[in-house]
Amino acid sequence: MAVIAIVGAGMMGSALSTPLVDNGHEVRLVGSPLDHEIVRALKAGEAHPKLRAPVPGVRPYFVEELSAALRDADAVALGVSSAGVSWAASALASELSRAPRPVLMISKGLVWRESKLHVLPDVFQASLPPAAAEQISPVGVAGPCIAGELLRRVPTSIVFTGRSPQACDAWRALARGPYYFVHHEPDVVGAETCAALKNAFAMGVGFGAGVHEARGGGSGSVAYHNYESGVFAQAILEMQRVVELCGGEARTAVGLPGTGDLTVTCNGGRTGRFGKWLGLGLSLDQAIEKMEGATLECLEVLRELDLALDGWDMSRATEPGELPLLRHLTDVALRGASVAVPFERFGR
Amino acid sequence: MAVIAIVGAGMMGSALSTPLVDNGHEVRLVGSPLDHEIVRALKAGEAHPKLRAPVPGVRPYFVEELSAALRDADAVALGVSSAGVSWAASALASELSRAPRPVLMISKGLVWRESKLHVLPDVFQASLPPAAAEQISPVGVAGPCIAGELLRRVPTSIVFTGRSPQACDAWRALARGPYYFVHHEPDVVGAETCAALKNAFAMGVGFGAGVHEARGGGSGSVAYHNYESGVFAQAILEMQRVVELCGGEARTAVGLPGTGDLTVTCNGGRTGRFGKWLGLGLSLDQAIEKMEGATLECLEVLRELDLALDGWDMSRATEPGELPLLRHLTDVALRGASVAVPFERFGR
Repeated sequence: MAVIAIVGAGMMGSALSTPLVDNGHEVRLVGSPLDHEIVRALKAGEAHPKLRAPVPGVRPYFVEELSAALRDADAVALGVSSAGVSWAASALASELSRAPRPVLMISKGLVWRESKLHVLPDVFQASLPPAAAEQISPVGVAGPCIAGELLRRVPTSIVFTGRSPQACDAWRALARGPYYFVHHEPDVVGAETCAALKNAFAMGVGFGAGVHEARGGGSGSVAYHNYESGVFAQAILEMQRVVELCGGEARTAVGLPGTGDLTVTCNGGRTGRFGKWLGLGLSLDQAIEKMEGATLECLEVLRELDLALDGWDMSRATEPGELPLLRHLTDVALRGASVAVPFERFGR
Repeated sequence: MAVIAIVGAGMMGSALSTPLVDNGHEVRLVGSPLDHEIVRALKAGEAHPKLRAPVPGVRPYFVEELSAALRDADAVALGVSSAGVSWAASALASELSRAPRPVLMISKGLVWRESKLHVLPDVFQASLPPAAAEQISPVGVAGPCIAGELLRRVPTSIVFTGRSPQACDAWRALARGPYYFVHHEPDVVGAETCAALKNAFAMGVGFGAGVHEARGGGSGSVAYHNYESGVFAQAILEMQRVVELCGGEARTAVGLPGTGDLTVTCNGGRTGRFGKWLGLGLSLDQAIEKMEGATLECLEVLRELDLALDGWDMSRATEPGELPLLRHLTDVALRGASVAVPFERFGR
């Protein structure tokens, strides 16, 4: 059995401990600088404040105890927010240089830099000192997974993805189990791009519930599902296109990282609720206020995609009018445009 | 403006009248032999008994009045059940032979015959007398559309698909409008196969809610979405494979006919409810009884797919173990196997 350090004690980082603990590993859950209250609660034997449930079997560490937690760990998982990836790279640099280990990235996001959209495993690797970067090929995890469900051992199917099949296999051997089904996906750019994009598109699917309510409708089997499904289908088509523009394979948007993760995000989460407020006619600021400080990954990823669209348009990688849904989402989320989904321009 | 006859006064046939009436056409809604009560209600100015809402602007006809309704109609839509397609072919034969017209097929299904899985537009065309069959290339409609929502003018995106672009264009010009977005899909085998398959796979996605309830869970954002989304993603992968086996293009399962229609079917309908009863542990007979006589398209299509799987296995078109989800669905729905989704065998 192995010693595994998870850095970042948010919902997904913490939930990943469940299959690892069940496999008999020693799991150390290390808070980021933002996770002090979570670690305090876990050390006191209380429920995880965000998951609202205990996280059994883990050993909690404050960020100040990071070195001790990492020292003899056989593998490291990163569950920090996308904004925390550069902090993590510098915090882990010396330990990973001293002893390179398989690294799993739970963090999701995209970064536009030097006319290219980068996925986080590449961003993290590039931020490491050369000695560590040469020996570590981070593994990403993508696919449909609500943290609170993994914590309760709901059957969960995801992919581990990375440029090194060995690193993927190492993490797969540690984590897979009777309710955590881990598949291997070699297309890391495609899988990680989908994992980030799903938040943006789930916001768009969420518009439907708001427009429906604005028109006086209630919930039920006859609601605004035709609208939502039209947006959903276009989202997958545009995911395929964005994946291609990033250098990944369109097919990757079809399986767990694309259709699977978009489905779960539309059903389970805050991004859809945020989209609903916008569809209801609230201004951007009003909608953000309604979310009471929740992290809105959709806004973070749409900011990078907006830069990317400008870059692709200028280099003529994209044609004018291509990706009509994504362009509308950036207009709504970044420039306060009203929700008016351009269905007539949809199609492949 | 045109005169359009819709044959079959069920939910979807009746709802198609809304965009046609709004476009100023004269729309004649002709009941099948099973629709007497529906036509009586509409003639009396009452609500449609299945849609539970009025169908404004249509002219209702009993099946005995079929000839009069068809005589000077410019176009014909078929909204009968899949089992009613051969009745429709013989009932319409003489009128369509006398004056061939653009035909739209709303009916969905697959028929295994002579070692091949056939889509309904082809089945219908083959059932017509040669004179009519030569001149009519039926157009199919596929994509996410809940009838009750179309009736209420919820924005709806679908495809018209067929071997004749002219026939597709003719129907598109009649039907498209400000809330009915009609795209053209040349891959009729792919689109129609997806439209039929979605009922089978939606049953499988529905298992999740039942297994969750059997484990004591309630509804909410933390429920059994990881399970459902894992099945959903696999469903799209297997749709692609079945489409290929039928001679269509895998990409067709990605847009409106595949991802779009499966999403809406999982959210809106009776098929998911049937799957839930099975996931809860009810026997096949008990689950059917719970549905109180509702037509279960999933059972009809799974019977044909079961024959197809046998045929493909024998001819080695499929490898043993390929399509694990679909095989499990046939075992559950046709042979009373318990629900035990083989997640570990999923993947492309």
